[in-house]
Amino acid sequence: MSKGLPTRSEDYSLWYNELVKKADLAENSAVRGCMVIKPYGYSIWEKMQAELDRMFKETGHSNAYFPLFIPKSFLSKEAKHVEGFAKECAVVTHYRLKNAEDGSGVIVDPDAKLEEELIVRPTSETVIWSTYKNWVQSYRDLPLLVNQWANVVRWEMRTRLFLRTTEFLWQEGHTAHATKKEAEAEALQMMNVYADFAENFMALPVIRGRKTESERFAGAEDTLCIEALMQDGKALQAGTSHFLGQNFAKAFDVKFATKEGGLEYVWGTSWGVSTRLMGALIMAHSDDNGLVLPPKLAPIQVVIIPIYRKDEELEAITEKVNGIMAELRKVGVSVKYDNRDTYKPGWKFAEHELKGVPLRIAIGPRDLENGTIEIARRDTLTKEQFELASQPISEKITGMLEDIQTSIYSKALNFRAEKTTEVNSWEEFKEVLEGKTGFLSAHWDGTSETEEKIKDLTKATIRCIPLDRREEDGICVYSGKPSTGRVLFAKAY
Amino acid sequence: MSKGLPTRSEDYSLWYNELVKKADLAENSAVRGCMVIKPYGYSIWEKMQAELDRMFKETGHSNAYFPLFIPKSFLSKEAKHVEGFAKECAVVTHYRLKNAEDGSGVIVDPDAKLEEELIVRPTSETVIWSTYKNWVQSYRDLPLLVNQWANVVRWEMRTRLFLRTTEFLWQEGHTAHATKKEAEAEALQMMNVYADFAENFMALPVIRGRKTESERFAGAEDTLCIEALMQDGKALQAGTSHFLGQNFAKAFDVKFATKEGGLEYVWGTSWGVSTRLMGALIMAHSDDNGLVLPPKLAPIQVVIIPIYRKDEELEAITEKVNGIMAELRKVGVSVKYDNRDTYKPGWKFAEHELKGVPLRIAIGPRDLENGTIEIARRDTLTKEQFELASQPISEKITGMLEDIQTSIYSKALNFRAEKTTEVNSWEEFKEVLEGKTGFLSAHWDGTSETEEKIKDLTKATIRCIPLDRREEDGICVYSGKPSTGRVLFAKAY
Repeated sequence: MSKGLPTRSEDYSLWYNELVKKADLAENSAVRGCMVIKPYGYSIWEKMQAELDRMFKETGHSNAYFPLFIPKSFLSKEAKHVEGFAKECAVVTHYRLKNAEDGSGVIVDPDAKLEEELIVRPTSETVIWSTYKNWVQSYRDLPLLVNQWANVVRWEMRTRLFLRTTEFLWQEGHTAHATKKEAEAEALQMMNVYADFAENFMALPVIRGRKTESERFAGAEDTLCIEALMQDGKALQAGTSHFLGQNFAKAFDVKFATKEGGLEYVWGTSWGVSTRLMGALIMAHSDDNGLVLPPKLAPIQVVIIPIYRKDEELEAITEKVNGIMAELRKVGVSVKYDNRDTYKPGWKFAEHELKGVPLRIAIGPRDLENGTIEIARRDTLTKEQFELASQPISEKITGMLEDIQTSIYSKALNFRAEKTTEVNSWEEFKEVLEGKTGFLSAHWDGTSETEEKIKDLTKATIRCIPLDRREEDGICVYSGKPSTGRVLFAKAY
Repeated sequence: MSKGLPTRSEDYSLWYNELVKKADLAENSAVRGCMVIKPYGYSIWEKMQAELDRMFKETGHSNAYFPLFIPKSFLSKEAKHVEGFAKECAVVTHYRLKNAEDGSGVIVDPDAKLEEELIVRPTSETVIWSTYKNWVQSYRDLPLLVNQWANVVRWEMRTRLFLRTTEFLWQEGHTAHATKKEAEAEALQMMNVYADFAENFMALPVIRGRKTESERFAGAEDTLCIEALMQDGKALQAGTSHFLGQNFAKAFDVKFATKEGGLEYVWGTSWGVSTRLMGALIMAHSDDNGLVLPPKLAPIQVVIIPIYRKDEELEAITEKVNGIMAELRKVGVSVKYDNRDTYKPGWKFAEHELKGVPLRIAIGPRDLENGTIEIARRDTLTKEQFELASQPISEKITGMLEDIQTSIYSKALNFRAEKTTEVNSWEEFKEVLEGKTGFLSAHWDGTSETEEKIKDLTKATIRCIPLDRREEDGICVYSGKPSTGRVLFAKAY
């Protein structure tokens, strides 16, 4: 197949959009800002879901499901929360259509107006805390450790496939605790779960940090986050975990009887990652030939392509391939035999490259004679002849898959290191931003005013205050006021 | 715990509602007609999803995701479809809230009115076929075998937990084919997948049949279904699979170039099951003590309860239990050790009975001495002493779980046989309906008029024309006109 992808250096943004479409990951739908996640893209999301779901369950969480609709009055109960979400929400006002009397078609039935408008959930804190009110009476009912996999809607004005869409898929954890300490520990734990997932499955190095006040979730007292760097030097927030304090407990009057006989408000957290992770995965590793997928999330880890002219040759190859596939499947490798006769090998090579299959095996008649196969790595675009007698094929392939997983992580980590600059003056700050961009590690005076001014002047925002930052006396890169440690700035998705 | 369940004979409907709530399956939310699926209920749904998803993939389908919103004009493109769904749909008309100028709170922003209203999907044929138009050009692009797990909304006036809710969760398969024959085979295949799932996992015997014209899906040319019988003698439609003909292909202009160089409309199917299956599962097997779950779908298959007075006793019991749990887990049995010290054994027995855990093991100090355990079956409420030396515990338990699975299926099958009556006159028809109800197998003249009249007079509807019915000359039970075979009538959920 002809890929027709622009290169990253030509036009990174166009490269991304075209890659998402050409690799059959997603496309825009007829509904403004809403995407269609295509089967291949969805199969990657399913792998992500499966791993995250396992990690949530291992940390004691259960899944549940709460309503899509939120009464308008609920959204308003937490002041900052409604301020954060009111500007971009889809509102259901009617519950019926009817035929227009003038025969002009189907119209909204004015007699079917809702008494109270319903908001399509942009996030579910309000509807969930209104439910928790009934679930919590005593300390014995705590903690509640609940997660939901769901769709949410935020009416974004400028949308991009996976990165920012009107409707997106996500998971949202909502927990309730008896103590502040426990809730804070939960928020930290889930941020670490996200970081582990990003690093060990997505092969995506992330900075673990804390948001500044102005970048906090609407209704949270503290927002922890993981931040990743994309190949164009822009940052991407990949997951957030919020300590909600008692804000939603107070908004929905959720109190519990303590062991000691008192009555106290419950402490809360919420945390989420979304299909945005798909965007991060695509942008972190892929190249001008197409997707590069980490083996742990690749729906197909190995594709085998027969090279033949005559049908007898195919038969002999297929027999060999069946044996190889059986061995690979035995050790849990997902393998596909692409024996379609409607396409030539070269076309198939290009297609599987575009789709990011980590390893490609090619076998022809000469290989059968020599007891060899050709193995090509997607990440490095290198090929090798492998002698089947030299090592069990399952060992060889699992070894290579592990190597790819580690190797693309290291590559991304090195890239981030190269693209992270300590800057110590405003001139330097602007210079770096204009040039190679990336993360700028700089002193900041801790005020929202300075943060806002820097954003207005440069479009760079504080991505986070890294959790592992050193104490270091310095002066704010913009205001010159004192600072006790560096924060990370970047332009961001 | 005190169950406080009404009995089925006292008030079947109340028994169901209370059971759903008390067994922590689901509850009504603050949003009219929308339910909250609680963690325990959701964990059963997850087990159902996992099995169905596996079956869909084994039959060649992939998952994808399509938008929640459907432009109003799309819904109108298929005439019968819009007629079927327009009366009960949630309509999004605005995309923003704002603060009222008079300070009265948050209101819908009149300046943020959508040009075209969006319908919250009641089902996704229209948005999916509008997408398929871009996916299909040639016969090489066919078949498309796609499924989606999603939430849908139908504005029902009278709702009941799981059985009929405004929002519900489901899967909807949507396939496109080059030939009528292939699409018909697909619709039949998926109906059979549903029937297999119902019988082999839910332990729910079902009738495989075809809907009459008036009961068909809005936009289908043929609707196949599986119908089950509940303990109150009412039928429940548990899944449907539709042959759509070329209706949606025509509505959305989806044509393909044939191998022979022609241009033809694509043939379609759609098929779905929903959280309604949860209702069927609950009503089919449960009793006055609570839920009865088939082992294959029980989130916890075995619960172990220690019986002790002193802490030393508990220690010795726990050591024994750890060994038993390890052995059971090795063979894939899900087991929970309920060693909470906040509740007494009797309370725990009642709770796990209510929640339908198939097997309960109790161990006390005397058991340790004797090398025994007590095993109680939830379905029969029988207990036995088991000598651990007599048989490996894993063998004993897996054997019992298999026996429960088979046994509750047989019980339901016998019940259905008892409750299925061949009736041959109108008098008999009415008499049976007033008494024990269940399925009435009767001759029908094949007209919608007769069907409608019978429904008006008795509330009984034709549940289906069984696929395996015998050819049999007879006369319609109502009109006396000729008929060539029996159909199944019942009052239904």
